[in-house]
Amino acid sequence: MSYTTQEVRTIGVRGIPLVKPGDDLGKIICDAAEKQGTSLLDGDVVVVTQKIVSKAEGRVFQLKKIKPSILAKRIAKMTSKEPELVELILRDAKSIVRLYDGHIITETRHGWICANSGVDVSNVSGGDSAALLPVDPDKSAKHVRKRIEELTGKKVAVIVSDTFGRPFRIGHTDVAIGSSGINPILDARGTKDLFGYVLKVKQTAIIDELASAAELVIGNTTEKIPVAIIRGYKYPVDESVGATHLVMPREHNLFL
Amino acid sequence: MSYTTQEVRTIGVRGIPLVKPGDDLGKIICDAAEKQGTSLLDGDVVVVTQKIVSKAEGRVFQLKKIKPSILAKRIAKMTSKEPELVELILRDAKSIVRLYDGHIITETRHGWICANSGVDVSNVSGGDSAALLPVDPDKSAKHVRKRIEELTGKKVAVIVSDTFGRPFRIGHTDVAIGSSGINPILDARGTKDLFGYVLKVKQTAIIDELASAAELVIGNTTEKIPVAIIRGYKYPVDESVGATHLVMPREHNLFL
Repeated sequence: MSYTTQEVRTIGVRGIPLVKPGDDLGKIICDAAEKQGTSLLDGDVVVVTQKIVSKAEGRVFQLKKIKPSILAKRIAKMTSKEPELVELILRDAKSIVRLYDGHIITETRHGWICANSGVDVSNVSGGDSAALLPVDPDKSAKHVRKRIEELTGKKVAVIVSDTFGRPFRIGHTDVAIGSSGINPILDARGTKDLFGYVLKVKQTAIIDELASAAELVIGNTTEKIPVAIIRGYKYPVDESVGATHLVMPREHNLFL
Repeated sequence: MSYTTQEVRTIGVRGIPLVKPGDDLGKIICDAAEKQGTSLLDGDVVVVTQKIVSKAEGRVFQLKKIKPSILAKRIAKMTSKEPELVELILRDAKSIVRLYDGHIITETRHGWICANSGVDVSNVSGGDSAALLPVDPDKSAKHVRKRIEELTGKKVAVIVSDTFGRPFRIGHTDVAIGSSGINPILDARGTKDLFGYVLKVKQTAIIDELASAAELVIGNTTEKIPVAIIRGYKYPVDESVGATHLVMPREHNLFL
């Protein structure tokens, strides 16, 4: 078979050990990629799940050490969640946008609208601890990118991904909460279509599409695949802007 | 290099001709895939963009032949759109959920919440015609799947994709508006994570992730790539349920 056509490969990175605070994620990823025969190349996009970034950055908290506020206790009762967990959710929230039917939808410190400020107990330590989102996921992505580039001499992009629900569609997809080395948007506005019609609207959130593509090989349960490499996708390089560029400003938000 | 690891390949299908009403999409896709040396295999996911499905199904309308209603004219004025286009948007809408700042966000006949009922003038005929969404995109997906299976003897899944905006995030991503032969959701609820913690929430909208992955190779401007093959992704086969399964029921919708 000949593949003269455009092809993008999404490769799961196996053999990543359980990550601890202070771990050198860039090195861990390079080593694991090399070991499985998929050493990083120029132009690769490395998608790293939020959970291991949060762990490396010490953003995991034991629930029993958290003292819930009166507000946290009240909301915990309303939503049938643990008060300590709610306390962590509130600490990372800039605002609560919906509190209904057992759901706590917040605006995180970064501006993301998501369930529980992204605070999550899965794949942390069996239910007694919770991981918060990185304080600055764009900075996290940049840190990992710089380290990978230093170790390999290759230019890559790094995306920190997380699993979010969507307001109008059932089910979750992975999106980007941090990125570095890639423009989050592929802007088609002003280009012409098949018939010469000038596109007025289309701006593709490519880092979200890359995060979703990566999820297809990322197992979150028995398989230990917290990292994926996307190879063959030509993206606009940009070192000045990160994923927070995709936060919808309040004044343009039709649904808040 | 050895690839013992999990890998998913996303392959753009080149050489698809301009699609006309009544065209046999299944055959066109099989022929183009074969011609470029990527003949369809068992387990492939074929992602077909809405535009060519709408064209094959005769869902393209010349704007000058549309007679706008008084309501369409009024909304056209409010939103600086053409009255004929607004008329088509309203005809395919079950309700208008937001009408603000030049945007018409509707609930389509299928239940999708999106801009302009998915009605779009790009890649149709230079701006004088508009394509509406297929009447029943799940049925469209099934039709294409059955035809591909008939021609190739292979079992595949088919997704009809479209480009939607998101309420809380800047930029568009491709999502599934129709599907056949695949369960839209990979349900991880009840499975255990790395530490034996039972996941309570995670339901991955895999057809949306597959649509987003496909968009990475689908050009919508000068390149004619309206179809992608996703190869190597093990999905739950289901012939009884389509993409409309992902429509969020009103009573669970926190943001309408």
